[in-house]
Amino acid sequence: MNAAAPDHVRIFDTTLRDGEQSPGCSMSPQQKVVMARALAELGVDIIETGFPASSQSDREAAALIARELRETTLCVLSRCLPGDIEASARVLQAAAKPRLHVFLSTSPLHREHKLRMSREQVLEATARNVAHARSLVDDVEFSTEDGTRTEKDFLAEVISAAIAHGATTINVPDTLGYTTPSEMRALFQRLIAEVPGAKDVVFSAHCHNDLGMAVANSLAAIEGGARQVECTINGIGERAGNCAMEELVMALKVRGAYFDADTRIDTRRLVPTSQLLSRLVGMPVQRNKAVVGANAFAHESGIHQHGMLRHRGTYEIMNPEDVGWPASQMVLGRHSGRAAVAHRMQALGYVLEDDALDRVFAEFKALCEQQRVVEDDDLKRLMQGDAGDDGYRLASMTVSDRGQRAVAQVELSDPRSGHVIESALGDGPVDALFAALSAATGVELKLESYQVHSVGIGNDARGEANLSVRHEDGEYQGTGTSKDIIEASALAWLDIANRVLRTRQPQRISASA
Amino acid sequence: MNAAAPDHVRIFDTTLRDGEQSPGCSMSPQQKVVMARALAELGVDIIETGFPASSQSDREAAALIARELRETTLCVLSRCLPGDIEASARVLQAAAKPRLHVFLSTSPLHREHKLRMSREQVLEATARNVAHARSLVDDVEFSTEDGTRTEKDFLAEVISAAIAHGATTINVPDTLGYTTPSEMRALFQRLIAEVPGAKDVVFSAHCHNDLGMAVANSLAAIEGGARQVECTINGIGERAGNCAMEELVMALKVRGAYFDADTRIDTRRLVPTSQLLSRLVGMPVQRNKAVVGANAFAHESGIHQHGMLRHRGTYEIMNPEDVGWPASQMVLGRHSGRAAVAHRMQALGYVLEDDALDRVFAEFKALCEQQRVVEDDDLKRLMQGDAGDDGYRLASMTVSDRGQRAVAQVELSDPRSGHVIESALGDGPVDALFAALSAATGVELKLESYQVHSVGIGNDARGEANLSVRHEDGEYQGTGTSKDIIEASALAWLDIANRVLRTRQPQRISASA
Repeated sequence: MNAAAPDHVRIFDTTLRDGEQSPGCSMSPQQKVVMARALAELGVDIIETGFPASSQSDREAAALIARELRETTLCVLSRCLPGDIEASARVLQAAAKPRLHVFLSTSPLHREHKLRMSREQVLEATARNVAHARSLVDDVEFSTEDGTRTEKDFLAEVISAAIAHGATTINVPDTLGYTTPSEMRALFQRLIAEVPGAKDVVFSAHCHNDLGMAVANSLAAIEGGARQVECTINGIGERAGNCAMEELVMALKVRGAYFDADTRIDTRRLVPTSQLLSRLVGMPVQRNKAVVGANAFAHESGIHQHGMLRHRGTYEIMNPEDVGWPASQMVLGRHSGRAAVAHRMQALGYVLEDDALDRVFAEFKALCEQQRVVEDDDLKRLMQGDAGDDGYRLASMTVSDRGQRAVAQVELSDPRSGHVIESALGDGPVDALFAALSAATGVELKLESYQVHSVGIGNDARGEANLSVRHEDGEYQGTGTSKDIIEASALAWLDIANRVLRTRQPQRISASA
Repeated sequence: MNAAAPDHVRIFDTTLRDGEQSPGCSMSPQQKVVMARALAELGVDIIETGFPASSQSDREAAALIARELRETTLCVLSRCLPGDIEASARVLQAAAKPRLHVFLSTSPLHREHKLRMSREQVLEATARNVAHARSLVDDVEFSTEDGTRTEKDFLAEVISAAIAHGATTINVPDTLGYTTPSEMRALFQRLIAEVPGAKDVVFSAHCHNDLGMAVANSLAAIEGGARQVECTINGIGERAGNCAMEELVMALKVRGAYFDADTRIDTRRLVPTSQLLSRLVGMPVQRNKAVVGANAFAHESGIHQHGMLRHRGTYEIMNPEDVGWPASQMVLGRHSGRAAVAHRMQALGYVLEDDALDRVFAEFKALCEQQRVVEDDDLKRLMQGDAGDDGYRLASMTVSDRGQRAVAQVELSDPRSGHVIESALGDGPVDALFAALSAATGVELKLESYQVHSVGIGNDARGEANLSVRHEDGEYQGTGTSKDIIEASALAWLDIANRVLRTRQPQRISASA
């Protein structure tokens, strides 16, 4: 650790290349442009936009992005072959800050079985192709594929040849996610100490997550002297994926004093960028995903909620706002305690004496045995002995679907006006259903994401629908559960609409129990 | 490293306690019993079944599991309070191998803001309550909550008091997922070297994943001398979750020589156990989740597929079969090369000369610009110039849904018999639809899981349905995409049914281009 400013670690984003080449994550050139804009906004230093020799689509995307993004270094990948390198250089002509990335396997297994090349041939190919790349582009990165499983002396020789022939960044990938943090730190320390010219180039790590260690290995490489890390949004990538950018960036931020290194990422854009990628490729992150998962800042257990209410630092090392979430959620459920229930009641306007709280808390616990999560509405109903439910409820629905031409009719009960019936047409049953609900309630919601999955097994199985929508300036999530997924979708929609309506009108519920 | 057998690291599973207390993961006592059976079958050493003082449901689950599982150590959690400890001891009376787990926060922030206790009070409460627990149960674990943010000298003092008063396992949690692997290793080395009596107890790590380092920190604790790790299936748990058991276990197995430690887990049951948990709580893992994600062993890029075909070790450090997957998948898509296409063609019975392969590969690449993944059926159609499609296709469908009472009618075209129309009733539109498809095709599929999510944004958005089903002895996955999620579901169902039917009948397609 030194007293100067922390070192700058370059963030090299490969969401559009390594990420995009993972099964089910293909993106069209237009989708890649949308994503590249978001990455530039996020503040990444280098965007790898594709592998031009591999497809027309990759060439088109790289060219489109090069025309638009003038401030970010744009990189494309090439095998250690003249044709690949020339295809890459052609695509990079349009770029304001081009980088050409050449890779070659160095490990014994890859040399023997994949390349069928000797050590001497690998050295010679490295020297020749790096020199060729450097004659075309000034900023050249060279990667030793499967570097962590390569003989250390030979790895140093190859890197030395690449540096001597003009490489400006040296990337050592843990291609199979095989390494441990101690090994990674030692490897970078040794290479940077021993390879001639190492001090004049930037060392980079590219870690895969097969054994769950991609982030820890990338951080260990930084401890060992790496000043670039290759990563992807949501950790997408071949097999178990790459180092997740959001985790790496937040580890450097939260443990800044320990690592003495930082990035230029605008961390408040991490969550929006993660959600954009999920929507673009249709690949949601799991709820317990670090930093960007729906549960990353959610607290349900009584002990944690109690601690959080007294001091946020007891159970949080980051502020949710710093990564782009609205705020930590206290989810009320079976594991919640009195303190959390009292706190939520207060937020809803109810100030309870001890014995009133005892009664409500007992009823709350009973309700938790029937349902997973207790919402604000449920608490209000508890306070009113079920009398004053103030939202729309689904009385009946019919949907007729002829494959992309569907009609839906809904009947809602409404404590204010009795009930209302509306129908609408749509592209499919859910589209028609949401249009009918919108007509019935007068609420317009812009759908951002929609998921249904089965919960439970056998006869207990039911569908759970999760919606994310935009309404005016806010984003809302809603959930509904039913044996019928269309009905579950309607319940999720109404869940949100009722909350939207409640914020519009003055609170009509009395604030005492 | 020594020449003796590797050390045994105990796997302490807390899926049913820390996992279950994460938002949306609540389980009923019956669901917990199903999961506990699977954990015992998997070979975990200790199962934490719940937190008896927190709810009736936790007490019931712990008692049910205690009656059934006689070979696995069963553990329940208690705050450092006599009432909690007695509630736990009562539940454990039914257990054949009971363990009582007591925890208390030790960090300055928790002492001041959560407990409002001095150092002396924490020491005194530890001694008194551990002794009380030990008077009731022989196997007592003590946890220093937020241990990694505790002053090291004080942490050693508390642990020393716990050991002196009868604790047999000492667990040091990284409650907030704040630590790095180097720190974790050093902490365990120091505690085990310095604390009186440390050699007579088992040290344990409990790591959270807030910065993506739970697995690496748990492994570092093992390097430092820990011989128990607390973890959960799929890494579920508070916030970003706990150390994922499947990742930890496979890291110890793949890097056995490095860690010189192993577990007793039957690794072939990791994937089935992961999938059971996902179904029980309705929380799927993301596709790029290590070990148990759908992509963990999937290879799409041409370079990786080419390498894999020559030597599996080039891009895999584990065999998918060893963790319970059927086999690695070569997903054919835009990133696939000639070698992979030729290999798949050969598996389908087509032996192609170079120029025939050139033609097919060009058509394959063109097809990839239109769709993400190219299936075997698509390849067969390529070989036949689209002529001989041999499966059912959806001609039209109508679904009428009145909320849990739905009727579906489907019309299918079939190259063998012209077309067929059938209708059926069901609990909801999807249930009715699948019943009608089953009647039309004569294929019965048992639904295991069902998911729909939106893919793309704006006008390009469409629904993608993913089905997992059982048919006779096999498990099948199918996917369908449409603007209409019901239609997408029908396409996914037919995708599977056509594959099932094809395996039943002799192959009718000629094997030459």
